[in-house]
Amino acid sequence: MARYAVTGVASGIGAALAGLLKERGHQVVGFDVRETSDNVDQFIPLDLNDLPAIAKAAAQVEGPLDGLCNNAGLPPRTGLEAQILQVNFLGQRSFTQAMLPHLTQGSAIVNMASRAGHKWRENVDQIKRLGALRGSSDLAAFIDNEDINHVRAYDLSKEAMILWTMAETEGLFARDLRMISLSPGGVSTGILADFARAFGDRMAKNVARTGRPGNAIEVARVAAFALSPDSNWMKGEDIAIDGGMGAFNASDTLGLSALRLT
Amino acid sequence: MARYAVTGVASGIGAALAGLLKERGHQVVGFDVRETSDNVDQFIPLDLNDLPAIAKAAAQVEGPLDGLCNNAGLPPRTGLEAQILQVNFLGQRSFTQAMLPHLTQGSAIVNMASRAGHKWRENVDQIKRLGALRGSSDLAAFIDNEDINHVRAYDLSKEAMILWTMAETEGLFARDLRMISLSPGGVSTGILADFARAFGDRMAKNVARTGRPGNAIEVARVAAFALSPDSNWMKGEDIAIDGGMGAFNASDTLGLSALRLT
Repeated sequence: MARYAVTGVASGIGAALAGLLKERGHQVVGFDVRETSDNVDQFIPLDLNDLPAIAKAAAQVEGPLDGLCNNAGLPPRTGLEAQILQVNFLGQRSFTQAMLPHLTQGSAIVNMASRAGHKWRENVDQIKRLGALRGSSDLAAFIDNEDINHVRAYDLSKEAMILWTMAETEGLFARDLRMISLSPGGVSTGILADFARAFGDRMAKNVARTGRPGNAIEVARVAAFALSPDSNWMKGEDIAIDGGMGAFNASDTLGLSALRLT
Repeated sequence: MARYAVTGVASGIGAALAGLLKERGHQVVGFDVRETSDNVDQFIPLDLNDLPAIAKAAAQVEGPLDGLCNNAGLPPRTGLEAQILQVNFLGQRSFTQAMLPHLTQGSAIVNMASRAGHKWRENVDQIKRLGALRGSSDLAAFIDNEDINHVRAYDLSKEAMILWTMAETEGLFARDLRMISLSPGGVSTGILADFARAFGDRMAKNVARTGRPGNAIEVARVAAFALSPDSNWMKGEDIAIDGGMGAFNASDTLGLSALRLT
């Protein structure tokens, strides 16, 4: 039996993960802006957009934890640029810092990134500028200066989760902690329509090629593995859970047909 | 209970994987050049360097399979350039083709790549030329023309495993099969000394930074997950099992310190 913290526990992937962990005999400390009693042993309200409240929420955790899944996140919605960057990345980073004292040796921190963050190689400098921000007025100026709309804010927040996971790994290694990020493709949850609106063709084509969107439980099973000691030698990397979208696109782009069996 | 095929089953990661699968109640069909009766329900001799023998070995499998782990491989040893490329990649590809009829719908094929293959982005054209080879005389000319020594042969064979996994994913999707590659860093097995000799400083520095080499069982646990239905939406991608080596190096190269918590 282990005890795991899960953010965004009231719906979607977070709810599926909490249910799976409970089914396997573990305890769950759940965080969300919306209260829930489903699949949690302790529920703590958390608004990642409210910086001063983050440390207070973390302080309410009862007992040591064996892992943390930073799963909460906002979809790409017009006008929410600052909230997206705050909730999906900057707030998660602050929350993680506040949670570190609860994590026992060997714990994993599993960060929910996205396939939408897989173009990080093209945006390293912008991700670093975002990562250097520490206050909310800086964030407003950053969005203005870099002309960031809601789709770019979402992609950027997920690119940042992937690179943050890499960046933090050496420091966490020294404390016997580790981080992994997960990058789902389109997943059938309450916010799938937001992604369809924001990404349009780009998502529709990818989903058609993989046959269907992913399911929350398919992502949750990988998250449970990433949290468990079975993945203890995996550190600082991103795992795609996308039904092959990344491979299909890479194979096209790189022209890999010569490698195939037949 | 599932039934899995594992190549290179007589030692190292293959033996650890077979032992783990048996411990979890599964059946194992084991392949190796060296005979073993440990942890296998059926043993079949297999020399991946002997092309005509590959299809004969595959034909001996009794009963349907729920997954295949292409784990067999040669380490970088001087003079073995052709054998390394044959056993670690070309032979595995032929073997996989011969094994396809045994694999039930939903099965995973898990390919053992290596952290040594992670520079594939720099070598896509050479990997494609290797992938286009079909006969052993072509292979000898390729090694000659491209001036490939044993270390390059090893790295190239693993780069090819990673790209082959991407390339094959769409064709396998149509048959309800999937592939994943695994990339361990240095692992404590009987061939660790070969890698230390071949890679020298490059490996020693990385291992020092992660505190120790990986263990065969730590890789085997990830392989068991990749073979299992729990990873069913992961297709065509590479999973590093390297204690953070990749993250440490990426964080240095990209200068990611601005992203860190403190």
